[in-house]
Amino acid sequence: MAYLLTAHQYGKAETRLVRIYRDTGQHRIRDLNVSTSLRGDFAAAYLDGDQANVLPTDSQKNTAYAFALERGVTDIETYALALARHFTDDIEPVSGARVEVDEYEWERVRLAGGELPHAFVRASPEVRTTTVTVEGRGPEQRAWVLSGLRDLVLLKSTGSEFAGFLRDRYTTLAETDDRVLATSLTARWRHIRAADDFDALNASVRRVLIEQFATVHSRALQQSLWEMGTAVLAAHDQIAEVRLSAPNKHHFLVDLSPFGLDNRGEVFHADDRPYGLIQCSVQRDDAPPAGPAWDAPGSFAG
Amino acid sequence: MAYLLTAHQYGKAETRLVRIYRDTGQHRIRDLNVSTSLRGDFAAAYLDGDQANVLPTDSQKNTAYAFALERGVTDIETYALALARHFTDDIEPVSGARVEVDEYEWERVRLAGGELPHAFVRASPEVRTTTVTVEGRGPEQRAWVLSGLRDLVLLKSTGSEFAGFLRDRYTTLAETDDRVLATSLTARWRHIRAADDFDALNASVRRVLIEQFATVHSRALQQSLWEMGTAVLAAHDQIAEVRLSAPNKHHFLVDLSPFGLDNRGEVFHADDRPYGLIQCSVQRDDAPPAGPAWDAPGSFAG
Amino acid sequence: MAYLLTAHQYGKAETRLVRIYRDTGQHRIRDLNVSTSLRGDFAAAYLDGDQANVLPTDSQKNTAYAFALERGVTDIETYALALARHFTDDIEPVSGARVEVDEYEWERVRLAGGELPHAFVRASPEVRTTTVTVEGRGPEQRAWVLSGLRDLVLLKSTGSEFAGFLRDRYTTLAETDDRVLATSLTARWRHIRAADDFDALNASVRRVLIEQFATVHSRALQQSLWEMGTAVLAAHDQIAEVRLSAPNKHHFLVDLSPFGLDNRGEVFHADDRPYGLIQCSVQRDDAPPAGPAWDAPGSFAG
Amino acid sequence: MAYLLTAHQYGKAETRLVRIYRDTGQHRIRDLNVSTSLRGDFAAAYLDGDQANVLPTDSQKNTAYAFALERGVTDIETYALALARHFTDDIEPVSGARVEVDEYEWERVRLAGGELPHAFVRASPEVRTTTVTVEGRGPEQRAWVLSGLRDLVLLKSTGSEFAGFLRDRYTTLAETDDRVLATSLTARWRHIRAADDFDALNASVRRVLIEQFATVHSRALQQSLWEMGTAVLAAHDQIAEVRLSAPNKHHFLVDLSPFGLDNRGEVFHADDRPYGLIQCSVQRDDAPPAGPAWDAPGSFAG
Repeated sequence: MAYLLTAHQYGKAETRLVRIYRDTGQHRIRDLNVSTSLRGDFAAAYLDGDQANVLPTDSQKNTAYAFALERGVTDIETYALALARHFTDDIEPVSGARVEVDEYEWERVRLAGGELPHAFVRASPEVRTTTVTVEGRGPEQRAWVLSGLRDLVLLKSTGSEFAGFLRDRYTTLAETDDRVLATSLTARWRHIRAADDFDALNASVRRVLIEQFATVHSRALQQSLWEMGTAVLAAHDQIAEVRLSAPNKHHFLVDLSPFGLDNRGEVFHADDRPYGLIQCSVQRDDAPPAGPAWDAPGSFAG
Repeated sequence: MAYLLTAHQYGKAETRLVRIYRDTGQHRIRDLNVSTSLRGDFAAAYLDGDQANVLPTDSQKNTAYAFALERGVTDIETYALALARHFTDDIEPVSGARVEVDEYEWERVRLAGGELPHAFVRASPEVRTTTVTVEGRGPEQRAWVLSGLRDLVLLKSTGSEFAGFLRDRYTTLAETDDRVLATSLTARWRHIRAADDFDALNASVRRVLIEQFATVHSRALQQSLWEMGTAVLAAHDQIAEVRLSAPNKHHFLVDLSPFGLDNRGEVFHADDRPYGLIQCSVQRDDAPPAGPAWDAPGSFAG
Repeated sequence: MAYLLTAHQYGKAETRLVRIYRDTGQHRIRDLNVSTSLRGDFAAAYLDGDQANVLPTDSQKNTAYAFALERGVTDIETYALALARHFTDDIEPVSGARVEVDEYEWERVRLAGGELPHAFVRASPEVRTTTVTVEGRGPEQRAWVLSGLRDLVLLKSTGSEFAGFLRDRYTTLAETDDRVLATSLTARWRHIRAADDFDALNASVRRVLIEQFATVHSRALQQSLWEMGTAVLAAHDQIAEVRLSAPNKHHFLVDLSPFGLDNRGEVFHADDRPYGLIQCSVQRDDAPPAGPAWDAPGSFAG
Repeated sequence: MAYLLTAHQYGKAETRLVRIYRDTGQHRIRDLNVSTSLRGDFAAAYLDGDQANVLPTDSQKNTAYAFALERGVTDIETYALALARHFTDDIEPVSGARVEVDEYEWERVRLAGGELPHAFVRASPEVRTTTVTVEGRGPEQRAWVLSGLRDLVLLKSTGSEFAGFLRDRYTTLAETDDRVLATSLTARWRHIRAADDFDALNASVRRVLIEQFATVHSRALQQSLWEMGTAVLAAHDQIAEVRLSAPNKHHFLVDLSPFGLDNRGEVFHADDRPYGLIQCSVQRDDAPPAGPAWDAPGSFAG
């Protein structure tokens, strides 16, 4: 009987890094949460406690800071690619790297007299994300880039129904032809090639997602997600695939009839838990293979 | 030896209530978290377990929902006042009520063709707040109204220094004439009288706070807060007092010199904890007494 | 018209400090979250940006670390007192200090062969707390010490009823003679004098609170709290006052009758929000005055 | 050009269910957070908004409650298996189901006179977990069962070193032969067959994990994890595989030398972020294939 180390990775998670560009009077700011992880020839660290091949996670953190200065952060995808390629190219035992970056958006403070050059306010509860995976070295090197967003909270106060569903012994839900539909969207999309301008492209994807959610008359959240995903693919031929995870944040109409009141879609209880959870992937038929792009930390244990 | 019940209140906390106005084609939405608490003649519930005077917290929740329909939610202050006055006026054993409401802001989805009438996106990480206290009945009744906000995250990338401070045995901090100043502001202000339009007034206060934070050259966060508070009082003579609580969210310049890099205010580590915490109250000299307006739940135990 | 700086304090919040005693083979560990704040002659920092009287919050943090080594952490109350007295005694502009400490408890890992001397597991979701306030200097100096706990989650699966309550127009709640009673208790108690052994005393208070919650047949959560508070006072004559804040974490019996099932108190939905919130203070009649002991950060804005 | 719906699932997440056994005087309690998701023939809901095949998530929630009464919750694995098999066997369009359950542990209140039969205190910050996946129907049906835990917070105050590691241009970390090692462990293990007593088995796995963490002299967290994982496999031949995800929660020795103090491993700063993150899988060489057992929600988008 033998025991095998079948998968492993290690890195530094959640380095909170702020890059400020002050080369012009008009400062710019990129506010990041950076996580790096390395895969490769590290079995000796597990089996024998031998660290000879192990680049400390502290060095990975230092690299994240140094690259933010040297290479800059034009956008999180390009920054993450540079980091992931560096680890794979330059650290001998590393065969692959995964770099995940969250970004928090700031907007410039606007006063009556115009925008201020170096005062900012957190713009939104949303988070922009990227996940970059690099494998191999030299001509064989492959890279996969996902962009995404999470905590995009959307609500439609009408234009959503839910009816004609399957019923079983445990079904008590009434059909409805007019309900509140709300979600806190997590979306990620896979690029076929690096974008010329990731920020512009991702902003466009976000607009398409919101537009479809807002304008599709929804017979189910599933249908809304499909329309959102395919609209992104239709708008951007460099996107291979879109994955969406959407909690159905229930808004229950409050029964006010015991108080002689007729609540016609005006007062709701916004419930915390449980919530529906709808998840799907939409892909163009000629998409290149996803490889390890979507491999989740959860596949390890979390 | 005797034991005294010296203070007590009870209520329903965090009723998540969404009020949708659909009387025109252009829907409007108020998204609230409502907490009510009652004070009065409830000692028998504690000492003898006698509930005869105790209006269930469930009834308080029902009232919050019913009032949202009947009275509506033109703004959270007016809504909270109506609730607090109702409990005090109409529930015999109640001598006073405290109603606290948080509000989450939504903005209408904007597409190329204009605003959509019933699709919304969560606008901001900020929370609007009100705290209304009512005491007594009839001509003796008194009411205090606080408005506020929290999680207003602000950052200046320059225009902040910290020098000339007191030094003791444990002081190692270097002086600086240029640092990042960032905070997540909690502000509350006390009204002398009910506003004609609380929403407009509060939006103006928010603008003044941001403007002062952004434009005052800061020799310390204390100074910024003072300028912010007095500017609010100067702009709105119906505000008696402003209280501010501002964490100093430290952004530490990363030392990149070991890597031959000169980090001139461009790469920072945004630290989570610890943080400075500056708190102050600014009041006009002829302000009416605050009474119980600011009494905190913390004074009970939390 | 003049504007007044009516109250202010500043300090360093949430310094995460771990003190390990390794003087014997049997290590001991104190895991703290320390917040200090100073009151005094700091108006110039606000009004003029003059820091001459301002001891940096960074120095306060350093002091917390240094005292943990020099004075040690025999218990959090004694440690907090030492810190608060130091700031008040030794820093000229300081007229008073508030030190709040949270403690997370660890227990030693126990194996078949006995306890391990330097391996620990986080024992509990509960947090131990203290709040120490010191005012003045020399013979006039006064100190107030609160001890407490929070996140003590308790549940009784029977022995709780709720009936005979006041009904109004908005009351729909049914009476019950058997319900689940659950809370996440926050408790704080004020000491008349410093304890010989705060840890032992506080552990005893915790036991009394749990015992009363568990054994009192509850006609309302109010009644349980009163019995808990007075039992603490009865058991410890050096405690002047107990304050309790108890959410009523609702467990709703799920109606399974549509599925032909009779749910006799066996399956519940544990709801997140809203929750009841019951708060009270119980005091002995000859308690010394509380002074500023309970002043809450909330009184500033938060 | 065509767009494909390549993967999808939907369900009800985080149903907070408490099952109380009151058939004897000695009550027992199981406190669960249940998430169910279904896979199968649901494409029409996405493409056409046709719900004919869609069992509402509300019905899934009802089923979770009803099964808790009818089948009971002897342990979370058996309960989750029953639910997953029911959805797959009895709901026509369903080809597979995933049921995830978290459990919060309570312990009975112990007084001087013994244990109380129906009063409980939350025992621990840890969460017990299970993930059950069922695919297919009839003789072809396959099931995979994972058990696990998370938020098991462990600390060693000595017996850990980190030296001999790889150095690159960005390495500044000093070697150490004595450091604090702390983690908040997430562990999951895959069963080869259903256990006779999952609770007993899982408690044993937990003990083995803690024992190895505590007693292995650690040359790196990687080594500790390997020893923990293989010890579990050695102790339980019905476990095929163990996956571990362990943040390295850094405890930095505070430099007190500026204050003339010699900090010899006694005062630490417990940092929040960033943290190291070490993840691995340990498997016996004859383990049956894992199939979809570990597929993570993250593979969808989150």
